[in-house]
Amino acid sequence: MFLSLATWPEIDQRLKDGKRGIIIPIGSHEQHGPTGLIGTDALCPEIIAREAEKQADVLLAPTFSVGMAQHHMGFPGSMTLRPSTMIATIVDWTASLTRAGFDRLYWVNGHGGNVATIQAAFAETYAAYSLRGEAAPFAHMLKNWWELPGIERLCLDMYPTGHGSHGTASEVAVTYWAYPERANLAKLVLEPKIAPNGPIRDAADYRRRFADGRIGSDPTQSTPEQGGTIVAAAAKALITDATSFFAETA
Amino acid sequence: MFLSLATWPEIDQRLKDGKRGIIIPIGSHEQHGPTGLIGTDALCPEIIAREAEKQADVLLAPTFSVGMAQHHMGFPGSMTLRPSTMIATIVDWTASLTRAGFDRLYWVNGHGGNVATIQAAFAETYAAYSLRGEAAPFAHMLKNWWELPGIERLCLDMYPTGHGSHGTASEVAVTYWAYPERANLAKLVLEPKIAPNGPIRDAADYRRRFADGRIGSDPTQSTPEQGGTIVAAAAKALITDATSFFAETA
Amino acid sequence: MFLSLATWPEIDQRLKDGKRGIIIPIGSHEQHGPTGLIGTDALCPEIIAREAEKQADVLLAPTFSVGMAQHHMGFPGSMTLRPSTMIATIVDWTASLTRAGFDRLYWVNGHGGNVATIQAAFAETYAAYSLRGEAAPFAHMLKNWWELPGIERLCLDMYPTGHGSHGTASEVAVTYWAYPERANLAKLVLEPKIAPNGPIRDAADYRRRFADGRIGSDPTQSTPEQGGTIVAAAAKALITDATSFFAETA
Amino acid sequence: MFLSLATWPEIDQRLKDGKRGIIIPIGSHEQHGPTGLIGTDALCPEIIAREAEKQADVLLAPTFSVGMAQHHMGFPGSMTLRPSTMIATIVDWTASLTRAGFDRLYWVNGHGGNVATIQAAFAETYAAYSLRGEAAPFAHMLKNWWELPGIERLCLDMYPTGHGSHGTASEVAVTYWAYPERANLAKLVLEPKIAPNGPIRDAADYRRRFADGRIGSDPTQSTPEQGGTIVAAAAKALITDATSFFAETA
Amino acid sequence: MFLSLATWPEIDQRLKDGKRGIIIPIGSHEQHGPTGLIGTDALCPEIIAREAEKQADVLLAPTFSVGMAQHHMGFPGSMTLRPSTMIATIVDWTASLTRAGFDRLYWVNGHGGNVATIQAAFAETYAAYSLRGEAAPFAHMLKNWWELPGIERLCLDMYPTGHGSHGTASEVAVTYWAYPERANLAKLVLEPKIAPNGPIRDAADYRRRFADGRIGSDPTQSTPEQGGTIVAAAAKALITDATSFFAETA
Amino acid sequence: MFLSLATWPEIDQRLKDGKRGIIIPIGSHEQHGPTGLIGTDALCPEIIAREAEKQADVLLAPTFSVGMAQHHMGFPGSMTLRPSTMIATIVDWTASLTRAGFDRLYWVNGHGGNVATIQAAFAETYAAYSLRGEAAPFAHMLKNWWELPGIERLCLDMYPTGHGSHGTASEVAVTYWAYPERANLAKLVLEPKIAPNGPIRDAADYRRRFADGRIGSDPTQSTPEQGGTIVAAAAKALITDATSFFAETA
Repeated sequence: MFLSLATWPEIDQRLKDGKRGIIIPIGSHEQHGPTGLIGTDALCPEIIAREAEKQADVLLAPTFSVGMAQHHMGFPGSMTLRPSTMIATIVDWTASLTRAGFDRLYWVNGHGGNVATIQAAFAETYAAYSLRGEAAPFAHMLKNWWELPGIERLCLDMYPTGHGSHGTASEVAVTYWAYPERANLAKLVLEPKIAPNGPIRDAADYRRRFADGRIGSDPTQSTPEQGGTIVAAAAKALITDATSFFAETA
Repeated sequence: MFLSLATWPEIDQRLKDGKRGIIIPIGSHEQHGPTGLIGTDALCPEIIAREAEKQADVLLAPTFSVGMAQHHMGFPGSMTLRPSTMIATIVDWTASLTRAGFDRLYWVNGHGGNVATIQAAFAETYAAYSLRGEAAPFAHMLKNWWELPGIERLCLDMYPTGHGSHGTASEVAVTYWAYPERANLAKLVLEPKIAPNGPIRDAADYRRRFADGRIGSDPTQSTPEQGGTIVAAAAKALITDATSFFAETA
Repeated sequence: MFLSLATWPEIDQRLKDGKRGIIIPIGSHEQHGPTGLIGTDALCPEIIAREAEKQADVLLAPTFSVGMAQHHMGFPGSMTLRPSTMIATIVDWTASLTRAGFDRLYWVNGHGGNVATIQAAFAETYAAYSLRGEAAPFAHMLKNWWELPGIERLCLDMYPTGHGSHGTASEVAVTYWAYPERANLAKLVLEPKIAPNGPIRDAADYRRRFADGRIGSDPTQSTPEQGGTIVAAAAKALITDATSFFAETA
Repeated sequence: MFLSLATWPEIDQRLKDGKRGIIIPIGSHEQHGPTGLIGTDALCPEIIAREAEKQADVLLAPTFSVGMAQHHMGFPGSMTLRPSTMIATIVDWTASLTRAGFDRLYWVNGHGGNVATIQAAFAETYAAYSLRGEAAPFAHMLKNWWELPGIERLCLDMYPTGHGSHGTASEVAVTYWAYPERANLAKLVLEPKIAPNGPIRDAADYRRRFADGRIGSDPTQSTPEQGGTIVAAAAKALITDATSFFAETA
Repeated sequence: MFLSLATWPEIDQRLKDGKRGIIIPIGSHEQHGPTGLIGTDALCPEIIAREAEKQADVLLAPTFSVGMAQHHMGFPGSMTLRPSTMIATIVDWTASLTRAGFDRLYWVNGHGGNVATIQAAFAETYAAYSLRGEAAPFAHMLKNWWELPGIERLCLDMYPTGHGSHGTASEVAVTYWAYPERANLAKLVLEPKIAPNGPIRDAADYRRRFADGRIGSDPTQSTPEQGGTIVAAAAKALITDATSFFAETA
Repeated sequence: MFLSLATWPEIDQRLKDGKRGIIIPIGSHEQHGPTGLIGTDALCPEIIAREAEKQADVLLAPTFSVGMAQHHMGFPGSMTLRPSTMIATIVDWTASLTRAGFDRLYWVNGHGGNVATIQAAFAETYAAYSLRGEAAPFAHMLKNWWELPGIERLCLDMYPTGHGSHGTASEVAVTYWAYPERANLAKLVLEPKIAPNGPIRDAADYRRRFADGRIGSDPTQSTPEQGGTIVAAAAKALITDATSFFAETA
């Protein structure tokens, strides 16, 4: 079930039935190299979560589509929230959902650069209760889709070289599967074939280190078929992982 | 073109070609009565903008999907940003897009409750320049989709009674057109058939005044076909309106 | 009764008598063209409210005198709050007044540029309750003085041409009535006689479009006598409107 | 000259004439005991500054009328800004005035409880420059009106006993002089005649310690005539003090 | 007892024993002239409080070591919090300590520039309760170490000339006593021997007025022995003062 | 060299000599079980950094002593900053140090719970530059002391069982080495000997899961001697790691 496409009485009934967990795809809009889509990090968790929704009775929130990507701002089309803004936004999403009675918020994330800020935001939501001496009536779970059980192994086996850490072969494949009209981007010739590695700092430094935006990856090897394999596995793992979290007794 | 599905070199080229305008669908996730979808206010501008994108060379940003809907929080599934959070977020989206070189930001809005906060946010982005004595290198335009030329007239003619102001017959029709699998919601019997009117204050007051969430509307009359008519007209009007804004010389 | 000139036991008694409404004049300090006073938008609601106070048992808060006027910052003497600051301030005024037991806050506004931010601020005050699932123990009402019943009609009849939308003939007349020593400003010759119209963006853009600060107006036609007529009508309308709001049963 | 009653070309000319100083009355709205007006702390600096304006070529900003008075919130009619809000507001007033070219901001204050927050706000405005390694193009001066040269001595001589520190005999006299219709409040019998002293903490603590709101004062001895004497002396001292500050060469 | 070196069961027991007061040394890291240590203002209250802890059963919090020192930013090594940041931090320290049950927070301060911001922060912590109509379950006390009973007199008698107000002879002596390896700094020849006086504004202004950082002082006269005398007296006064505050019945 | 004990001319000289790196110990004050000190996470990086300072020419900032520890607030003595406050504070520390010319900030951290917030804070400092299209004139490095090369291996070899993840055997040993008077805490009998593991959420949840505060550890095996071994190795590794970072050419 999609929150976007549900009515409030349907959500009301769902909560009354004790289904108090919700999955929130969270990502980013930022450059992903010459062959990767700007929306990659929002699209991947959304694609995987939608596949999961076809197979299991889970509820999906709208995708949190713009995240923390300050380091990509040297490449046009990239968008970012400052961490402080992103924290405030996650605080409000949390307050909204828990006000209604959701008590398990499962955030499936598509952007490594979001992780620190999301975790800081979780702490911000908990701190309001912890400092008042009250128990928070909810729990968060953050899971990067590639860290779902078995997925990282699958991806690295699929791409023994050039998987990389930004504009990865696997995430690009996932988006090609969902948007096959863009799969021909893989025909581009990238130089170097496998992008360099290095630290991530501000945007000017990033652009200087990583000329076309990729880090450590060769996504020209990505195909829609590979993407489909990943999505199928990740959706299945997501169902198991989220369901287990939702089944917790507080 | 969708920002989500573009690569950064494509956006770079577009900007170099002098196409410095972008359309940003902005809405809300909140109850829309027993027959309306929670995502209605985000979906409508997105649906219209996507239809426009099929017909004209415009660039669409990702949808700003959760807005200011504090008054709906008495109905499960509703989400809200506090106005201060929403302002901070719009400030960051604006900074990101104008950093890349976009200079005309056209926000097509689907939620009346967003208007004040969006305009306050615009002022916040301008104020940073105005207080420094610098010229802002960008301009905002806010347009509610029903205020696009000709659309309000079309909707009121289509629904002479019970168009309403929340959970309106027209917006519900638009979503049924895009998601016809949900059109059978219109078969529900609502009591009263036309919802009452009244002021909007906090969530408890709202729920007391508007028992099922609607204001002044009878959306059981909405059909996918009517929605299609509205979308076609609104998309055309959007293209004209946005194109005119983008063609401004600063 | 003026809050400024009352003692706390007098306010305490008033609240115990069930008089829980308060009128708050709110405006701005910003250029109003060569013939208009910088304080116009704060002075007009204050003048009208003070006239109302002479005739009815209403309580006036101190005037909220500096508002959101970022677009006027290209003209010396203009002052502005950033929207985020203005929201925080209205939140605190609201908290203070409702803490004491006031439950109907009637804001009579003199500045169109304030409207969005004030409404966003109202939402911010309500949101704190809405997100906690509590009922807000108060209600806000915002009324621009020219939107009091009958006033806009009166003004447009009085100034069939050149009423305008900033540095309007009517608001200038109101200030001349209250400060007749400044009425000779109307003898200045303005070029063009009727100022141009256009969109409002940042301060640099504003100054370029509106050379002397006015928008669409010819305030050289304003006289103190006309101002007196407006004030008398507006004060009467304000009493009726505010009294009706205060008489609401929550 | 009053900023409120000036036009922008008049302010423009004044700045071009090198008159770059401005006086800002700043106060509070809070209980002042059974015989003192809620607006006392805003009224006193305003009264004194207006008297000064009659005698010298100084420019007065609108009065900053609601300050930091959290400790008075146990008494109805009291208003407060949180310190963080007040700092943001002073930052914006400063930015507005210095944007126009004012370079000496003289804040004449009527409320001891404001002092810490105002000074913190000054530091906040300076810090923006200090952290960037730039010179701030302005300077602040804060002066409590009773600390103007000679005034505290005058007041203590006038009221050898029961001058006090809140709801003081002198400040009450100043307001009676300006608003003689309220001078009959002095006929009230207060118990104890001279209020107790003690520390200032939160509002509940304050109300417990200071039953009728006064601290250390007997303002029943205040007369309009005494107020007039104080105003005359303070206005004269203010002119000298502010003029000297404005004459500084940076 | 030091909070840093205690275990939580030890603190738990202490609170259960009714010892609900805590001493918090608070200072700054900022230039103190050519002979003064950057940490002087944090070190002095820490040194004095540690001496007190040797002699009495008091609990010391960790030192709040970086304060509000924007005016010193023209000298390398200086650090500052913006006042708004410092307020937020003190709010959190207060919330943490009072959450555990501490109800008397005694802040012994080493930096005059901190005073306004600390007091504003106290008001911020109280305001949360005052605006809700609740009693704050704690009280703050701020005491500059040189204002402890008898200490200022002692210092001025010790240094009849050149005590000064920044980089004072007394504070430098206190640090030399604790860090005698740095006492040879006093052999430096300073020009002028006694530094000038003047107002404190932004950093650029400060550096222009006070060439080597000192204000009004000649700290070349400071010796470790003098520092020891001051510390002994101040520690004793601190014990008396804090103990008296802790013994208050709310 | 310690910033606290240096003078500004010494820091000025150091920067002129091209030594533009600084080490900042950062930790937390929070419960560490019945045998661990509340200050453990601040003390460990401080102890290690001080040992390094004895052996190499590095500059140490004052310790950032209170961090993000909301989950520990169920245990008396614990202190926390909200993540948003901690970000603001790190932003100010960064602005201060880079204003002076430091361009490599090496944060040696002692608290896992700080990591997300510190990284979010780094992004906040970079974002200001990235959104303006400027290069940040500095770089951050975050290193948990146990992640210094070779240290984690050393600790796990030292404590094959019961090393744990909070109140770890290694961190407790480090503090016992520096404060041997507290080493007798290790004689306490803990039940269970090895604490349980589990997720970290809000404070109430934490206290319920981890009855005495430890996670997965048996710190009764810790000795001062083991601590000394760890400190020696970590100090050496810190020198190498920080020196390498400082030697980077931007």
